[in-house]
Amino acid sequence: MPEYKAPLRDYKFVMQELLDCETHYSTLGYEDASLDMLDAILSEAGKFTEQVIAPLNQIGDEQGCTWTDGNVTTPDGFKEAYQQYVDGGWPTLSLPEEFGGQDLPHSVNTAIGEMMSAANHSFAMYPGLSHGAIATLLAHGTDTQKQMFLPKLVEGSWTGTMCLTEAHCGTDLGMLRTKAELNDDGSYRLNGSKIFISAGEHDLSDNIVHIVIARIPGSPEGTRGISLFAVPKFNITDDGVVEDRNGVNCGSIEHKMGINANATCVINFDNAKGYLIGEVNRGLNCMFTFMNAARLGVANEGVAASEASFQGALTYAKDRLQMRSMSGVKNPNGPADPIIVHPDVRRMLLTQKSFAEGGRALASDLAQLVDTVHASNNENHKALAEAKLALLTPIAKAFLTETGLESTSHGIQVFGGHGFIKEWGMEQLMRDTKISCLYEGTTGIQALDLLGRKILGSQGELLKGFAAEVVSFCQNNAGTPSLTSHCQTLASYLKEWQSTTMEIGKKAANNPDEIGAASVDYLMFSGYVTLAYYWAKMVACAQKKLDAGTDEKDFYLAKIQTGQFYFDRILPRAKGHAACITAGAESMMALDAEHFSF
Amino acid sequence: MPEYKAPLRDYKFVMQELLDCETHYSTLGYEDASLDMLDAILSEAGKFTEQVIAPLNQIGDEQGCTWTDGNVTTPDGFKEAYQQYVDGGWPTLSLPEEFGGQDLPHSVNTAIGEMMSAANHSFAMYPGLSHGAIATLLAHGTDTQKQMFLPKLVEGSWTGTMCLTEAHCGTDLGMLRTKAELNDDGSYRLNGSKIFISAGEHDLSDNIVHIVIARIPGSPEGTRGISLFAVPKFNITDDGVVEDRNGVNCGSIEHKMGINANATCVINFDNAKGYLIGEVNRGLNCMFTFMNAARLGVANEGVAASEASFQGALTYAKDRLQMRSMSGVKNPNGPADPIIVHPDVRRMLLTQKSFAEGGRALASDLAQLVDTVHASNNENHKALAEAKLALLTPIAKAFLTETGLESTSHGIQVFGGHGFIKEWGMEQLMRDTKISCLYEGTTGIQALDLLGRKILGSQGELLKGFAAEVVSFCQNNAGTPSLTSHCQTLASYLKEWQSTTMEIGKKAANNPDEIGAASVDYLMFSGYVTLAYYWAKMVACAQKKLDAGTDEKDFYLAKIQTGQFYFDRILPRAKGHAACITAGAESMMALDAEHFSF
Repeated sequence: MPEYKAPLRDYKFVMQELLDCETHYSTLGYEDASLDMLDAILSEAGKFTEQVIAPLNQIGDEQGCTWTDGNVTTPDGFKEAYQQYVDGGWPTLSLPEEFGGQDLPHSVNTAIGEMMSAANHSFAMYPGLSHGAIATLLAHGTDTQKQMFLPKLVEGSWTGTMCLTEAHCGTDLGMLRTKAELNDDGSYRLNGSKIFISAGEHDLSDNIVHIVIARIPGSPEGTRGISLFAVPKFNITDDGVVEDRNGVNCGSIEHKMGINANATCVINFDNAKGYLIGEVNRGLNCMFTFMNAARLGVANEGVAASEASFQGALTYAKDRLQMRSMSGVKNPNGPADPIIVHPDVRRMLLTQKSFAEGGRALASDLAQLVDTVHASNNENHKALAEAKLALLTPIAKAFLTETGLESTSHGIQVFGGHGFIKEWGMEQLMRDTKISCLYEGTTGIQALDLLGRKILGSQGELLKGFAAEVVSFCQNNAGTPSLTSHCQTLASYLKEWQSTTMEIGKKAANNPDEIGAASVDYLMFSGYVTLAYYWAKMVACAQKKLDAGTDEKDFYLAKIQTGQFYFDRILPRAKGHAACITAGAESMMALDAEHFSF
Repeated sequence: MPEYKAPLRDYKFVMQELLDCETHYSTLGYEDASLDMLDAILSEAGKFTEQVIAPLNQIGDEQGCTWTDGNVTTPDGFKEAYQQYVDGGWPTLSLPEEFGGQDLPHSVNTAIGEMMSAANHSFAMYPGLSHGAIATLLAHGTDTQKQMFLPKLVEGSWTGTMCLTEAHCGTDLGMLRTKAELNDDGSYRLNGSKIFISAGEHDLSDNIVHIVIARIPGSPEGTRGISLFAVPKFNITDDGVVEDRNGVNCGSIEHKMGINANATCVINFDNAKGYLIGEVNRGLNCMFTFMNAARLGVANEGVAASEASFQGALTYAKDRLQMRSMSGVKNPNGPADPIIVHPDVRRMLLTQKSFAEGGRALASDLAQLVDTVHASNNENHKALAEAKLALLTPIAKAFLTETGLESTSHGIQVFGGHGFIKEWGMEQLMRDTKISCLYEGTTGIQALDLLGRKILGSQGELLKGFAAEVVSFCQNNAGTPSLTSHCQTLASYLKEWQSTTMEIGKKAANNPDEIGAASVDYLMFSGYVTLAYYWAKMVACAQKKLDAGTDEKDFYLAKIQTGQFYFDRILPRAKGHAACITAGAESMMALDAEHFSF
């Protein structure tokens, strides 16, 4: 199992040096979020993830969760670790003081979220799901509901879930069948069955609050007839006191490719008492608030996977002796050279590294935008942040998880045959992270959201806004020698991004299938160019530090060199995607469904 | 679990219509290999793989192999299925009559190999490994050794292994420590420990013949001091009669990402009696014969993975109802349209299909070349076949397994969240096939073999030979309307392949690390272009059938349409790889090994 080290130095670089979180936090009025405080929190989070969560990752995979008569037992050590998590006050960090939170910025939590997920993807999902339930209640709950549910959820002694999927509908939620009927006391009784409910049942918390979508009889068909409910595992009084068991039952848990230590549950609602959140038939709109946040959380899991796999592969590549460097012996006293001397091993390591560090910069910037949306008093700033988030959320979710999966595959390849053996832990990373390409909307769904809803749906306005930011960066930095070439390259890809968009838009006017046909290649193209922008920003930041004089020259030089690798050896992949898009939908749609096989 | 259907129609297309195996076999003197015979064999193999092997795939994954005191038990049903395999005479197909074989062409076996692997990767490896041992003994064994080992191996009542890897050396076999000392009777006693020995111990056969590389004391260091030995699990007389247990022991089996039903063993040799194969210190040369064959076998596993995952995804995509087509309702009587109407789902299916069918054509052509090398009396034909095999073997091994892995990932995505659940069997395909990118030389090692040894090592001669074949095809077919564009595209990529090669060659003269830095992108570029050639050939063949008149119009039209998809939406990826290669080694080698992390 690779030993996990929280990337504290890199978080300092990204949050403080690149994104100037000090100014950002003080502008938003986060008085407590000083740099000292931030350092202290991240350093403690580093210790917690390294020492408490990471050591449970492998055993969690081996043991998995077990289901007995509707109860789920988590693997050895999970209960104790979760208690430590609660005792340490970690669930409360970025939540409102009113309900027991510490009112720190969301972006602090995002950094910790990456560490948690890198250390133990399965474990990180338990509190991760609570955040969604809390966010939904904060945004759409009544005062009574907030008092009933939030104090315990914020504290962490209760956890939450999101119950959307049913066996016959995942993407197409309009088809859902779970029924909610009004009780005399104003509550509802729910009947139906949900699947794929992460953390739907377990032994870590005293109660579980399910946020459930269901249809009230008489509502319109499709997505316009969906309402949202809070349904606790144990009934509670208006003051939040736990009473008897509600009609909520875990029917079974799934056996999966990965994240074995997180219980993926079938949850049956059998006349379960639930509380309407928001207005009748507006459930899906309420969910969207949460879904965007959840998608950023999953994007972060992609970064975490790249980082964890990179760390494991790097240690091995420095240690494993095999063959001699083609440019001359590098380890004359050993029987062979460490494999990190071989160009192709470096290619894999640098690919992982450039995805992890580039992804961290992107995810951290998005987290700051979420801070702004939450806390800014400036409506213009808020609107700009919302626009940029709308554009970059599907890119971050799909691109960072697909590259996370690629990184974990490289991690296995660096180990050779050993990478296939469970003991080393590298293959678990790949199995665990594959889910991130699926849940909260598959890569294909993110791509449709990006191209159909965000880009074409805004008549190109969202892209125009982001392009202006990139152009402005290029204009300001093209004169710096280490950035001249990067800025030219970026500007050229940006132009191609825009012209490709125009081209698809034109074709789609005649044939709407052109959108779906282009979408995933378009998303990957957008992802490579977006990450190039963040790499250019990091190079600019590192260059400034070097120019100003520093005793961490190696660190900043490594940033510049990794950025160069990204521009040289990763970004050109966008050319392949652009060429695929240009070919259009025709050959994708021509084959009759009955003629795919004979 | 997806139901497996052997692609018999496609094998008829590839072997008979595309590659004209009738002429090929008769030219080589394979009198028994008539088309009727071929049909009968493949049809029986289809039944065997569909009905006997495929149903054991999922249970094999769940149960895995179990180790007890040096003995390995295979999953339920494996022993009986293997006995059926032996009783059916399947092991004997393409082996010499002299030792009990049926003397059919190797290429017949290749087709069956794909079906076996698609139906059950783990099971297929047991007989697969025997082939390597048999091939080694046939090529390099003494008459006595052949009499001792071959009849039972050919029959299948004994199985074989290849014992190369040790814990500290996989790629770098020159570092091996297993020792072989001469006994008074001319045999050797072996001491040492090997790891990752597939099918190293199991309960399917009466004896296991290990082909082992070891060092005879006093031999030169490195790869020039390696000798090859046959070491049976049970000692045998010169007549092949089984006696007492030899000093060969299975120390443990590995817990792996996939292929759980195939035992991956630590094999300890403790004064084990072995028989020298070939000359002293020429062991690695003897191994190369086998390794090339093994690499083609693994390439075939990649095709099998694409095919199996495609079949599963296709069935689901026709069945699963979710959302409406953007170009209008396609299933008005259902609550939603089958997801095969959505362009991005088609993209994934067609990607799998184009890799499976294109890969099958490539693998089958290579199998015919192996036939020619084995059986031709024409030295010129043999030399041409050897040259083409030398070039295309590393491409087929790495490209078809990497695209196989990609296909299985698409297969999961088509299923959405269900793809992550074991029950559906789609995730097993991905876990199982990852090994094919690792064993018999990782993708990185194949890429070095291609670019360093084959292309640059032959001063470009091997590429020139293949290019001439492609150019000739383009010249002959450019006038056919359905092929004009394909031929132009192919010719242009071929030119780029050649110019890129020249460019790398020049750079490498100054810096040998340029080879390793370019290698994997170069291999993938080569793979995409090579497969485009096979797709163009298939389109040409299908067009001829259509022009001649046929009652299977839909089948041939589907070939042409899938070929168009490949040229439109897959081949352009090569552009991204070419652009990465152009950037050179500099940014890959710049970062100091100590500065990869801080």
